[in-house]
Amino acid sequence: MKAEYIAEYTKIIRLIEDKNNFLIVSHIYPDGDAIGSTLGLLNTLLKLGKTAYAYIADRIPRQFQNLPNIECIKTNLEKRPEVEVTFVLDSSNIDRIGQAGKFISSPLVNIDHHPDNTLFADINLVIPNASSTSEIVFDLLRYFPLNRDIVSTLYYGLLSDTGGFMYGNTNESTFRTALEMLKYGISPGEIAYRLFYSISYDTMKLYMEIIRGMEIDRDSKIAWCIIPLEIMENESFQNNTSPLLDMLLRIEEADTVILFKEHRDKYRVSLRSKTKDVGTVARVLGGGGHRGASAFDLLDKRDSAITDTVERIKALLGGKL
Amino acid sequence: MKAEYIAEYTKIIRLIEDKNNFLIVSHIYPDGDAIGSTLGLLNTLLKLGKTAYAYIADRIPRQFQNLPNIECIKTNLEKRPEVEVTFVLDSSNIDRIGQAGKFISSPLVNIDHHPDNTLFADINLVIPNASSTSEIVFDLLRYFPLNRDIVSTLYYGLLSDTGGFMYGNTNESTFRTALEMLKYGISPGEIAYRLFYSISYDTMKLYMEIIRGMEIDRDSKIAWCIIPLEIMENESFQNNTSPLLDMLLRIEEADTVILFKEHRDKYRVSLRSKTKDVGTVARVLGGGGHRGASAFDLLDKRDSAITDTVERIKALLGGKL
Repeated sequence: MKAEYIAEYTKIIRLIEDKNNFLIVSHIYPDGDAIGSTLGLLNTLLKLGKTAYAYIADRIPRQFQNLPNIECIKTNLEKRPEVEVTFVLDSSNIDRIGQAGKFISSPLVNIDHHPDNTLFADINLVIPNASSTSEIVFDLLRYFPLNRDIVSTLYYGLLSDTGGFMYGNTNESTFRTALEMLKYGISPGEIAYRLFYSISYDTMKLYMEIIRGMEIDRDSKIAWCIIPLEIMENESFQNNTSPLLDMLLRIEEADTVILFKEHRDKYRVSLRSKTKDVGTVARVLGGGGHRGASAFDLLDKRDSAITDTVERIKALLGGKL
Repeated sequence: MKAEYIAEYTKIIRLIEDKNNFLIVSHIYPDGDAIGSTLGLLNTLLKLGKTAYAYIADRIPRQFQNLPNIECIKTNLEKRPEVEVTFVLDSSNIDRIGQAGKFISSPLVNIDHHPDNTLFADINLVIPNASSTSEIVFDLLRYFPLNRDIVSTLYYGLLSDTGGFMYGNTNESTFRTALEMLKYGISPGEIAYRLFYSISYDTMKLYMEIIRGMEIDRDSKIAWCIIPLEIMENESFQNNTSPLLDMLLRIEEADTVILFKEHRDKYRVSLRSKTKDVGTVARVLGGGGHRGASAFDLLDKRDSAITDTVERIKALLGGKL
């Protein structure tokens, strides 16, 4: 347990012990860390005999469908559940949870690792140098009796946010956490295969089509590509784009990658970078995230919007913030 | 240090302390572990003020070119160097070192993690459950004063053979080793970017061309594809195919992947599997390797050879060994 945060850890552990009804929410466009930390906490609360709901106001990407109790995560809610405590996981602000914002109530517990977290809750356990929210949740839940399934979903989150211990956020604490997790009998290879080695062949072919359309500015080492609406809405397309972003980043000439995902009313724009701070760039453009991985919404859908945005990002990365 | 192997570790440490002239060889088709362990040992010996040569009788893949002292690894030798001790790293038998076989002499030290190692040397430090030869070499070299550069190349090897802590060979000892390595100030993100995120765009386009030609047998979940001679000999093609094999394995429908790499006189056939034992398959077909990653040579270049080989592998994996 990170010593500086003992007060927050203790308060949260007491809430879990003393209360009986919980709601857990996480961010829209859910990724492995959002899903992993939500399931880890949900399954622990259920194992303790508590009543717990989980709610993510978005579609759950297909590759998460084999996780234990994934079907317990609701993707829409009609009315506010009667709960005593609400957890918001992996979300730097209330906007990030989308429609779930309507259903949260005090006392609110915010567990996150985003450096731009707005500390919006009654208890804020925000540790920016943690590799993932799952790492923080594991550190917290170790106080309770866990099992292999619970720890597996949290390892899933850790693996997801570090790109398999490859991204710049991988540090001593990441490996120490992995080592602790292994004591619960989890199987790292099996989990990795389920998370990273399960891109459907149809999706892989669509990835290749998208990569073929990639453009690169060789001076700035910025590469960008577009997922058009027809692919985004293609039933066979797995809508978690982390594997595609990872594949784009593997290109030597691409130090920074911009992925424009077309939605009906906007582009969702994801940024990844090997060396540049794309978190700051995304914040300037109305979004947020980490140094190496961030995102924002582009509401302008005119033809020129993409070129203009690339130029804007190029200028921002070139130091013209 | 793994307790069972104390006698071997001690003998090797004494040789390093007592002798002054060393040769290090590793296998042809060198991968990250061959290169990483060779450079780790070479740079440690040089730092100790010893005379040391390294020899790998094959082309060094381009992505390794930025590693410290990579230019010291010779890829051809005219005559046997005058040395007192020869190390053979990451090679299960003498055939694997190719032309280097002509230049080795007693006392011979064999450091490896392949389960089919033939224990061909005077001292055999062979630990099959180690994730990589680099892990074993690190464990040995920790006895000596190391530095960040040396440990970085060994981390490189560890990362390479575990596919970034994702393959089935990842275990507690892998993470414990990573944690020890971090104490030398290495930067996991930077090393991963250099090793895994440096596929040239031209190579990526060739990968996509190869993947487009992939065939899948959906019943056996075996996928195979061919790299024709013209691509293998294309100057812009990075000839370490580990990243391509990794990309193929990411396809959900492909539990086992077969990659036929065409050479003038043969196919070099690489196998990867998420759940099946392809090490045994490769051994039956005259090659060798691990449970999840192996290779063999196919000397038959007739049109029917590929189909026949796929059928043979299908039968072997189906239990008809």
